[in-house]
Amino acid sequence: MRLRNVKNAHERLVSNEKYVITDCKEHKGKWNEVFGNNNPIELEIGMGKGQFLLELAKRNPDINYIGIEKFTSVILRASEKLENLDLPNVRIINVNADDLLDIFTEGEISKLYLNFSDPWPKNCHAKRRLTSITYLPKYEVILKKDGEIHFKTDNIHLFEFSLESMNNYQMLLKNISLDLHNSAFEGNIMTEFEERFSKTGPIYRLEATFRREK
Amino acid sequence: MRLRNVKNAHERLVSNEKYVITDCKEHKGKWNEVFGNNNPIELEIGMGKGQFLLELAKRNPDINYIGIEKFTSVILRASEKLENLDLPNVRIINVNADDLLDIFTEGEISKLYLNFSDPWPKNCHAKRRLTSITYLPKYEVILKKDGEIHFKTDNIHLFEFSLESMNNYQMLLKNISLDLHNSAFEGNIMTEFEERFSKTGPIYRLEATFRREK
Repeated sequence: MRLRNVKNAHERLVSNEKYVITDCKEHKGKWNEVFGNNNPIELEIGMGKGQFLLELAKRNPDINYIGIEKFTSVILRASEKLENLDLPNVRIINVNADDLLDIFTEGEISKLYLNFSDPWPKNCHAKRRLTSITYLPKYEVILKKDGEIHFKTDNIHLFEFSLESMNNYQMLLKNISLDLHNSAFEGNIMTEFEERFSKTGPIYRLEATFRREK
Repeated sequence: MRLRNVKNAHERLVSNEKYVITDCKEHKGKWNEVFGNNNPIELEIGMGKGQFLLELAKRNPDINYIGIEKFTSVILRASEKLENLDLPNVRIINVNADDLLDIFTEGEISKLYLNFSDPWPKNCHAKRRLTSITYLPKYEVILKKDGEIHFKTDNIHLFEFSLESMNNYQMLLKNISLDLHNSAFEGNIMTEFEERFSKTGPIYRLEATFRREK
């Protein structure tokens, strides 16, 4: 994603106290208190400007949604959208996926979304990909038993890599689609990126769970 | 594949005694005697008219190749090509994949090729697909430890199914390509089908091994 420099992005972001969580590590293991209920919590890593997460939250008021995004100038756009919405089931955090285990405890997340993650095309950067062995063990910790990962991308090589990486980690793959927009899949919520780039080639998607017992 | 009725196909096929094996079950466990050496034996299931297998055999004289094909009128074309070639490392059999365990013993095959297998598009026919749970346990028996399956197809739904089926059977997937002809893969040998149909969409390919100990 090309990033614009946004003036005072951090200050503007943290001023949105209703939706933006700044002391995220304080809530580890007790995110239900933040939402004031015991509804399941789903997480999007790399939420971008939030179109996907906010639409999901509107459709499912009985599910709580947390979005994380490392780029301040990007998550600020999500924050600005939220200011005009009443979505008590949403929180967003300006943080890197590397910190997941400091933010969530074992089994705290019911479902995890990865949408159009950075493909890190160079092989020497493979471990930075969000579907690499760097991150899968972290997801395994924070996801509850049978908690699903829903992953989609337009990047063919990231999808090839992800299939191999998840298979190699002995995850169970299902509902693989090699052309999501021309498949029988219903209820797809498009991200901003997906709306702009899906006309140039197929969108790939899969769902995966960890096989191991908890 | 559209099949033409070929007159006396069976008689013409079995007359090619040099290459066509008719008493295949007699050779179970002793195919090395048929070839007169102890070179590894690789198998193509659904060899069609043989373009892939024969080219592979020309390139690798120190590997033995067996091709099986259930349609007599199709394998006859392979037989006719062979009549004009000197390929002592090739044998072909007009038989169905269901009979694999009657033909080969445990670990007798070093590598297995599935090229453009019948997609059996109806869900109710899924178990007839050559990458389904019907066949994977048979392949697991006849393949030696770490023996690879090389699978390619132009059929998107067969490939999606095969990824899930092999993953579900806990096979290890590698070298997945979602667009073989625009990938870095070298040495691809095209089948007749692939030459004709690869211009209308991508060719999908994977390699897989069984994880379990033998």
